[in-house]
Amino acid sequence: MKSLTRYKTFNTSKKREYILITDWVREAVRDSGIVEGMALVSAMHITAGIYVNDAESGLISDIDDWLERLAPYSDYRHHRTGETNGDAHLKNLLIGHEVILPVTNGDLDLGPWQQVYYAEFDGRRPKRVIVKVMGE
Amino acid sequence: MKSLTRYKTFNTSKKREYILITDWVREAVRDSGIVEGMALVSAMHITAGIYVNDAESGLISDIDDWLERLAPYSDYRHHRTGETNGDAHLKNLLIGHEVILPVTNGDLDLGPWQQVYYAEFDGRRPKRVIVKVMGE
Amino acid sequence: MKSLTRYKTFNTSKKREYILITDWVREAVRDSGIVEGMALVSAMHITAGIYVNDAESGLISDIDDWLERLAPYSDYRHHRTGETNGDAHLKNLLIGHEVILPVTNGDLDLGPWQQVYYAEFDGRRPKRVIVKVMGE
Repeated sequence: MKSLTRYKTFNTSKKREYILITDWVREAVRDSGIVEGMALVSAMHITAGIYVNDAESGLISDIDDWLERLAPYSDYRHHRTGETNGDAHLKNLLIGHEVILPVTNGDLDLGPWQQVYYAEFDGRRPKRVIVKVMGE
Repeated sequence: MKSLTRYKTFNTSKKREYILITDWVREAVRDSGIVEGMALVSAMHITAGIYVNDAESGLISDIDDWLERLAPYSDYRHHRTGETNGDAHLKNLLIGHEVILPVTNGDLDLGPWQQVYYAEFDGRRPKRVIVKVMGE
Repeated sequence: MKSLTRYKTFNTSKKREYILITDWVREAVRDSGIVEGMALVSAMHITAGIYVNDAESGLISDIDDWLERLAPYSDYRHHRTGETNGDAHLKNLLIGHEVILPVTNGDLDLGPWQQVYYAEFDGRRPKRVIVKVMGE
């Protein structure tokens, strides 16, 4: 069994941002030399997520609106701690904090429109993502 | 380490459909000869999902209604591309596009009511699903 | 390749409950002797979930309110079966039934605030969770 682990730090300029990371994940897969396996991509924070969907700017705005509608910025009990990012925690739970992707023939085995995104919900500070590829 | 990868193409007659695929996943696990490991089941499209829940027709209608309530068919920015399936993208994000299942003693290690479903949100065209079993 | 599998049964006193299980998962990882790999934590029921987020009591109440708002206790078609837990199925789909966590240097590779939770949505009866650690 082989494995490769990499970290990447994001520090977005906006509070919410959606960053395409397919190439970064693909590079890790290729560098690992793993032919058959799986790649785990996971946000290491509780106010950021990872998802797979289309790289289309209109859709990304739709996703942002939709997340705000279902998990709005509002007054939450969590804010008694001094934080005001309750909505970012709920957006993270809605979109999910990790994905696990198949690796076949030494490459990510994604469908034609599947792209991997880092979703920042409480930015303007350093946040880490891990990719771990495992297989043979 | 052993692995087995299989693909299956769905071409549903309805726009939205929920198809039980536990047996197909179980067959891949058994054919892999893997005794201890994990099985990744993933839709290869951005308007279809995979989930684990009950094989009960009333519940499946409830799930369909609930997805339509939280991610309704509506006018989305994404539709400027010519597509009209923005809701299907959001339903996919809500339900998730993959599950990863434990394999123990050469079989899927699911609870008594856990069944694996393919959820189609924009059907009437060929869509692929991958299962990858990995372990020893 | 090594693996370790453990089960734990919860029998909550309340219908809905959120139980911190990071230590239990971490113990399995350490006992496995696995240095590099992944840990799958999965509810074996369709009315309970696993998620990663903050161990903060205000936030846990926020999450509970939010789940009830998006997947409310109500009259569902599923209830014709005699069950009255349709909401618990939908809450499970919203939060997800499993997480997969990176294992690095023999330990869970989580960010500073990431904690693993068992989320019970239809308690007062025995429910099982599986952790499976796989790697080398």
